Amino acid sequence: MILALAGGVGGAKLAAGLESALDRPQDLLTVVNTGDDFEHLGLSICPDLDTVMYTLSGRANPETGWGHAGESWNFLEALGALGGEDWFRLGDRDLATHVERTRRLRAGETLSRVTADLAARLGVPSRIAPMSDDPVRTVVETPDGDLPFQEYFVRRRCEPAVRGLRFEGAPAARMSAAFEAALADPGLDGVVVCPSNPYLSIDPILAVPGVRAALAGCAAPVVAVSPIVGGRAIKGPAAKIMEELGVEVSAAAVAARYRGLLDGFVLDETDRPLAAAIGSEGAAGARAPLRVTVEQTIMRTGEDRTRLAAQVLGFARLLHDR
Amino acid sequence: MILALAGGVGGAKLAAGLESALDRPQDLLTVVNTGDDFEHLGLSICPDLDTVMYTLSGRANPETGWGHAGESWNFLEALGALGGEDWFRLGDRDLATHVERTRRLRAGETLSRVTADLAARLGVPSRIAPMSDDPVRTVVETPDGDLPFQEYFVRRRCEPAVRGLRFEGAPAARMSAAFEAALADPGLDGVVVCPSNPYLSIDPILAVPGVRAALAGCAAPVVAVSPIVGGRAIKGPAAKIMEELGVEVSAAAVAARYRGLLDGFVLDETDRPLAAAIGSEGAAGARAPLRVTVEQTIMRTGEDRTRLAAQVLGFARLLHDR
Repeated sequence: MILALAGGVGGAKLAAGLESALDRPQDLLTVVNTGDDFEHLGLSICPDLDTVMYTLSGRANPETGWGHAGESWNFLEALGALGGEDWFRLGDRDLATHVERTRRLRAGETLSRVTADLAARLGVPSRIAPMSDDPVRTVVETPDGDLPFQEYFVRRRCEPAVRGLRFEGAPAARMSAAFEAALADPGLDGVVVCPSNPYLSIDPILAVPGVRAALAGCAAPVVAVSPIVGGRAIKGPAAKIMEELGVEVSAAAVAARYRGLLDGFVLDETDRPLAAAIGSEGAAGARAPLRVTVEQTIMRTGEDRTRLAAQVLGFARLLHDR
Repeated sequence: MILALAGGVGGAKLAAGLESALDRPQDLLTVVNTGDDFEHLGLSICPDLDTVMYTLSGRANPETGWGHAGESWNFLEALGALGGEDWFRLGDRDLATHVERTRRLRAGETLSRVTADLAARLGVPSRIAPMSDDPVRTVVETPDGDLPFQEYFVRRRCEPAVRGLRFEGAPAARMSAAFEAALADPGLDGVVVCPSNPYLSIDPILAVPGVRAALAGCAAPVVAVSPIVGGRAIKGPAAKIMEELGVEVSAAAVAARYRGLLDGFVLDETDRPLAAAIGSEGAAGARAPLRVTVEQTIMRTGEDRTRLAAQVLGFARLLHDR
C-alpha cells in the first residue's frame, strides 16, 4: 500500500501517476490538504480535494490543472449580474460538487465519507481522503493583515508578501480515519510526499497532531519529490513565499524543511549538483541517512506522470529493502 | 397604482402586460405566491417569484414560461453523476438566483428586500414582492399521503389526485410590508387577480391573515381574469384539481371561488354564454354587483399581454368611476 500526501495540481499529477504505476490502483491512498477549504456563498468548497478528485477521474481541465474539463461559466456570469461575489471561479459542473458536498456535510456526514463517495461515483479507482474531518483553515499573515487563504490566493492573486502562515483549527484536528489507519498499517510500502507547495499544501497536513510523529516513526520509507526545480516553483507561489520568508529558493531548502521526516528525496535533473549536499545536510535523527535520487520530475504528459511515479515507487522499494 | 396578485407563468404574463400598459411601470406592484417555495439541496427556491422576475426582466424561457432563456444544464448533469437529487430542474443561470438569495436570507435579510434588490439588478422596471416574508408552504393532500408542493408538482408531475390543500405557516404569516401598504394605499387604482391557478397560486395569498378582509374592504376595484377557458386550464393542473375536488371545471366556478372579493370578472370570449349567470351568481356581500366583461384572454404574444392588460385596466377604471 502507498500513501501519498498532496495539495492541488502538482500533487494530483503525481497521484495520477502513482495510480497508473501501481498494479492495483486501490493500493493508493491520497491524503489531501484541507487548509485551503473555505465557506463561500454558503457552500463548503475543498479546492485541493476537488483537484485531486477531478484529476484522478480524468475530468481535470488540462489547461489550468484545476476545475472541470469542458467547463461552462453561466452560473458565475448570472451571479455577477445579480451583484453576487464572483471573484472565486465556480464553474457550472464544479458547482455540483460543492452543492452536493455541502448538503451531505450539513446532513451530518463526515468529509471523509462524502469524499470517498463522490470519488467513487466519478469512477476514481484509488482512494482519496481529507487529512482531517475537522476544519483546518490556512491563514496568511501579510503586511495587509491576516488573510483567509482563498482571499490571499485567488482574490489577491498571491500579491501580498507572506510574513507567516498559520493553520487555524489544526491543534484540535484529528487525522482522518483512513489517514491514521494507513500510517499505522503494517502493509504500508511507502509514503510519497508529492511535489506540492511545502508551505501551503504539505505543512497543513504536517500540522495535524500526530502526523509528524507517525511519519517519523513509520516503518515504511518516506520519500518526497521536490516542487522546486532549478530555483523556481513549477507552479504556484512557492518560490515567492520562500523568498518572502527569507528562505533560499532551492530544492535543498525543501529537503531541509522536511528534515527528520524523509528517507528519500527526489530531485530534478536540473538540480543534480545539489544531490550530495542535500544527502549530507538533509539527514537528521532516526531517519538518517537521507538518500537522494535524480529524475526528470516535470510532468507535462500522462506518460511523464506514470514514469516519475514508477521511479518514485522503485526508489521507495529500494529504501524499504535496505 | 395597480396591485397584481400572481402565481407563476400565467400571472407573470399578465403582470408583464400590465407593466407595458401602464404609463409608469413603477406604478405596478406584483405580489407573488410563495406557497410553492421550498428548500432543496440547501437552497431557498422561490419558483413563482423567479418566474415573475425572469418574465418582467425579459429573461424567461419563451418555450417553458419558467426558467431562464438560453439556459444550460451542466450543473444538473454533474449533480446526477454525483448521485445528487436531480428531479428538480435547476439551470446553471437560474442557480445563481437561488445561491445568492439563500446567502442573503441566511445573512438575515428579508425575502422582500432580497426580491426587490435582485429584480432591480435584473432591470425589472416595476415592483415585485412576496406575499409574505414568513414561510408558507403548500401541502397537497393525496391518497398517497401529504406531499410537499414541489414533490407533487414536479417530482410526481401532478399525478396524485388532490383531496385537499393546506398552506402550512399561513396562519402565523404576516403580509409583506409592500403588500400591506398597497392594500391600504388611498392611491390604489385597482387590484388584478391574475389568471393563475386559484387553488395553488391565489388561495395561498388569500390565506395570509388580513388579505381577504383587506381585499373585501378596499376602495379600489378588484378584478380577476379567469384562468379557465372553455372548461380547460390554459396551463398547469387547475382543471385536473377542480375535477378531483368535485368542482365544475369552468370560469363560473373560479368566479364562485372568489365570491365576495371581486367587483369585476374577465371571461374569455369562448365563455361568453356564461357571463350573465356569473354576474348574477358570483356577486356577494358588500362588493355586489359583480360586473363581467368578455375579452380574448389567451396570451400568446407580447402584444396579447399588453392588449389584455390594457383591457383589464380599462375595466377596472370603469368600475372605479362607477
